[in-house]
Amino acid sequence: MKPILYADKEVRLIDQTRLPLEEVWVSIKSGAEAAEAIKSMKIRGAPAIGITAAYGLALHALHSPLTDLAALKAELAEVSRELAATRPTAVNLFWALKRMEEVQAQTVPELRERLLAEAQAIAAEDEAMCRAMGRHGAELVPAGARVLTHCNAGALATGDYGTALGVIRAAHEQGKNIHVWVDETRPFLQGSRLTAWELAHEGIPATLLCDNAAGHLMQQGQVDLVVVGSDRITARGDVANKIGTYTLAVLCREHGIPFYVAAPRSTIDLAIESGRDIPIEQRDSREVTHVHGNEVATRGVKVFNPAFDVTPAELVTAIITEQGIHRPPFGPVLAQVAKR
Amino acid sequence: MKPILYADKEVRLIDQTRLPLEEVWVSIKSGAEAAEAIKSMKIRGAPAIGITAAYGLALHALHSPLTDLAALKAELAEVSRELAATRPTAVNLFWALKRMEEVQAQTVPELRERLLAEAQAIAAEDEAMCRAMGRHGAELVPAGARVLTHCNAGALATGDYGTALGVIRAAHEQGKNIHVWVDETRPFLQGSRLTAWELAHEGIPATLLCDNAAGHLMQQGQVDLVVVGSDRITARGDVANKIGTYTLAVLCREHGIPFYVAAPRSTIDLAIESGRDIPIEQRDSREVTHVHGNEVATRGVKVFNPAFDVTPAELVTAIITEQGIHRPPFGPVLAQVAKR
Repeated sequence: MKPILYADKEVRLIDQTRLPLEEVWVSIKSGAEAAEAIKSMKIRGAPAIGITAAYGLALHALHSPLTDLAALKAELAEVSRELAATRPTAVNLFWALKRMEEVQAQTVPELRERLLAEAQAIAAEDEAMCRAMGRHGAELVPAGARVLTHCNAGALATGDYGTALGVIRAAHEQGKNIHVWVDETRPFLQGSRLTAWELAHEGIPATLLCDNAAGHLMQQGQVDLVVVGSDRITARGDVANKIGTYTLAVLCREHGIPFYVAAPRSTIDLAIESGRDIPIEQRDSREVTHVHGNEVATRGVKVFNPAFDVTPAELVTAIITEQGIHRPPFGPVLAQVAKR
Repeated sequence: MKPILYADKEVRLIDQTRLPLEEVWVSIKSGAEAAEAIKSMKIRGAPAIGITAAYGLALHALHSPLTDLAALKAELAEVSRELAATRPTAVNLFWALKRMEEVQAQTVPELRERLLAEAQAIAAEDEAMCRAMGRHGAELVPAGARVLTHCNAGALATGDYGTALGVIRAAHEQGKNIHVWVDETRPFLQGSRLTAWELAHEGIPATLLCDNAAGHLMQQGQVDLVVVGSDRITARGDVANKIGTYTLAVLCREHGIPFYVAAPRSTIDLAIESGRDIPIEQRDSREVTHVHGNEVATRGVKVFNPAFDVTPAELVTAIITEQGIHRPPFGPVLAQVAKR
């Protein structure tokens, strides 16, 4: 279920704004088109945004008529700035752009080839990291567990397999007979549209609920653990993720339920210590006031629509990376994982 | 802004499923029509359900061709059972039906007249109780307060003025310069459709947010207090209210924010001690999978859609009734208020 496919100087993306009603693939041939796809959330999910941005730079190089290396590099720097300006919270975007910027070459053809190879490596490594996270994280999932997740941290959000959903997939593949509670995840409905769709494809038993019902479900003793992805993890282990994640973490502590975060090393931002310093994207009010183009709210009402929130490290039971399961204090181990 | 109007053997209700896009009034002339309006949520909100049910019985008596008192009473008992079967959680429904059952008369014309008078008294008392709650509750709202509310506990949910929104209205009328955060309240969107609409009509500054953003807002220090209504309060002070309320109460404790419940005596159920014994209505999955008739979720997904949750008394800072502001322990004062 790879959401990003490269072939013949073209990247194809499954348009996630149209799922699950339609499976439409869009074609991307430039950095500008990649930036547009990220901005409009045709592709979303921190690792997938990084991969798409990397391909955006590679596509620009592949299609550019320039023959002068310095001129092409200057153009690429501009495209990189355009890609960096799409969405502020997920650090994987900046991590991937930096990897692409560091690619060295002596000639234009060599640069083209190496940028493509680097983008493909970023995608392939991401998938491998997801599978490793799945293997590690599945150890935290008891047989028969009822696992709650928020947003979509699945194959659609990554190179393939998923971060939080990778853990769920691996536990399911091990025959653990799990059941997944899927938060619908307002306003963009990544849970009801994307996570429920992925789980249905895999035949993993799942039940959808409104975000505001998770507390009631925990109070009824119906949740054994929560696992989510992340858009940025600070040096001390504060976790930015989809709006609503922080509330789940508070509810987990209230009910003595483990709260796990699954994310690859590209999500770790050692440059930021406190989660308070993570930029939180504010999105258009229309995401809240309209559903599928239909007005649902009182006309003219002001809207507060942050796309992410920050869960302090103190509320996180463990962070799962491709390296293993990490318990607090997170600082030393995150430094090690990120630098590897 | 009375949502329920009686005139000339007819009750008119503003159809709350069509707000805020259209202001359509529906006509009710029988108990069966009243039951349908409650079931389909054309009218909703615990006190308003009680008032509508009371009118349903009065309308049945007014339109019945029966001339035999015992026969009419037997028919009314049946209509009462039909009304009681509409929605299980709000106790105001059963409270109002019981008041109507206790109406005594010697003749059919007298019974008709007294049932109508009783229904009108229930409506008028509810409005008076809301205004008293508003006066009391406004004392809890500091000048400049940023007040978060969930669902719609407004004029639309009551005879007029509202319970939680009554407190907000009164504070606004006192010139306290407040700002209201409105949870959209999935799945039925009572916040974005009804509360935002009422506040816009009153010119009270308000901002809408997705339910899952309330925790983030509190974490940012943007909420001074939370006030909600209730569908049933047990003898010890456990509070059933719209799904998501319990989560808000947990978040309030986490952030040291006062959590207030405003409800009239008709909401208190002395027959139940623990909130665990309150029946929680499970509603149709379509409320979650569809918005305005449009499919938004993965087809065929199972849905968990409880309409209410229960907040234990320990998380409630104060209960506001028409009698005043009540602090824990709630048991003795609730017994006094309910019996008055």
